[in-house]
Amino acid sequence: MPAHPRPSLNKDTTLCISLAGRPSNLGTRFHNFLYDELGLNFVYKAFTTDDIEGAIRGVRALGIRGCSVSMPFKEAVIPLVDEIEPSAAAIESINTIVNEGGRLVASNTDYEAIAQLIADHELDPALRVLVRGSGGMAKATVAAFRDAGFGELTVLARNETAGRALADQYGCGWVGEDPAPGTADVIVNVTPIGMQGADASKLSFSPEHVAAARVVFDVVAFPAETPLIVAGRDAGKVVISGAEVHAMQAARQFERYTGVAITRDQVARAAAFSRAE
Amino acid sequence: MPAHPRPSLNKDTTLCISLAGRPSNLGTRFHNFLYDELGLNFVYKAFTTDDIEGAIRGVRALGIRGCSVSMPFKEAVIPLVDEIEPSAAAIESINTIVNEGGRLVASNTDYEAIAQLIADHELDPALRVLVRGSGGMAKATVAAFRDAGFGELTVLARNETAGRALADQYGCGWVGEDPAPGTADVIVNVTPIGMQGADASKLSFSPEHVAAARVVFDVVAFPAETPLIVAGRDAGKVVISGAEVHAMQAARQFERYTGVAITRDQVARAAAFSRAE
Repeated sequence: MPAHPRPSLNKDTTLCISLAGRPSNLGTRFHNFLYDELGLNFVYKAFTTDDIEGAIRGVRALGIRGCSVSMPFKEAVIPLVDEIEPSAAAIESINTIVNEGGRLVASNTDYEAIAQLIADHELDPALRVLVRGSGGMAKATVAAFRDAGFGELTVLARNETAGRALADQYGCGWVGEDPAPGTADVIVNVTPIGMQGADASKLSFSPEHVAAARVVFDVVAFPAETPLIVAGRDAGKVVISGAEVHAMQAARQFERYTGVAITRDQVARAAAFSRAE
Repeated sequence: MPAHPRPSLNKDTTLCISLAGRPSNLGTRFHNFLYDELGLNFVYKAFTTDDIEGAIRGVRALGIRGCSVSMPFKEAVIPLVDEIEPSAAAIESINTIVNEGGRLVASNTDYEAIAQLIADHELDPALRVLVRGSGGMAKATVAAFRDAGFGELTVLARNETAGRALADQYGCGWVGEDPAPGTADVIVNVTPIGMQGADASKLSFSPEHVAAARVVFDVVAFPAETPLIVAGRDAGKVVISGAEVHAMQAARQFERYTGVAITRDQVARAAAFSRAE
């Protein structure tokens, strides 16, 4: 009998999904790769929707086990779940829903992943951190640094209303223009600058800022090698990429959905597979 | 790189599902087998639900392309769809929903399959037909025979209320007890007698009825070889099995969901695969 991949599915196969305004292939490939490698009877598929309430009702009615939530639904799902873990409550943003026998439990693995990467790289809380951005992911980033004990945090955002609101919430400073190079040890980009698409070739911090920093952190996940990451590596800095954030947050979703712990090596191979297309 | 079956899925993969009180593996294996054989970017998965309205809302919100409907939801979904084709309207029972860009179009491929099998076997409308059963599938069966021009139709059902109602709707006779052998040329079982489970070893018509019939038709799909089918074949009768009905109705669902026509040979192999576990 020939190999019949999808027919290996059966009525007991557990479905996990994602909901995003503009779905990518990353999650679908990441999760399915590991289901297959570990022999788990799960299947994962990305969706978009114009009815987020109906989609979450469908998650309940169909017994969908896990639901990853991306822009623009991360705040909209807050009233639709039954329980919100501290990782999501603190930043009022949900990216993960686990269906525990009909009870929807929400968390934010983006926050968890950034916190984990700060710990993994043993970043000193005495370092001065400059975060460019004021959206939901910037909030997760600022919160993770704040919760890790970083005292000198500045939000850099053209949009004064959003930038000040984020800064005020976490007791940070706000600047609307790039400060002088040398005023930050950790520079973090949480804007679409450098992302695949229109701004792919742009550097989110000036070469002088990169030169003056000790740690260069880009939350943009696609491509893995943004101009900022390339510049940071070329300058010999400690580099943390959005690809790492994405892989780690997906790994934490995977573990929550399946209850199966995975190794760093498995995460790395699944992440590589998810990008190899 | 090793074979990675499920990771072949991506964000553009189309999902089809089934909704049943007690899901089987038949549909999931049938459809996925053919998706794979034909290289279609589809995936199929059986579900149950305790919230049929929420499940159908989920079909809309998630853009699920097709939804097969089994007991006990075949009537409950009637008010939840946008359009009902004649095959379903005539018998007030839906087993197939196709999502046409947000518009849910319902049909009944059980009715269509039975009608097709009557035609394929060139059954003479002058034959006297005795149908045992009074549920939704019995209605599809009686309607298909009636619409094929059969004039002498009798419903055999212990439950007088349901039996008479079905008989009256289609202008048939009703009997509550087995009539004398020799009064029917086509005997059709549409009860669970002979189905895998408690009644698996029971013969749904007496050996005398089988002997006196020309055509033996069992709508029970699992197992394929019910006691009635075995008895009919042993007695040299024309035999139509529930396995044929199930495969043909699934094939029609497949064609509606994918827009791809399949051959009899493909249907037969998918049906064999769906049962080989």
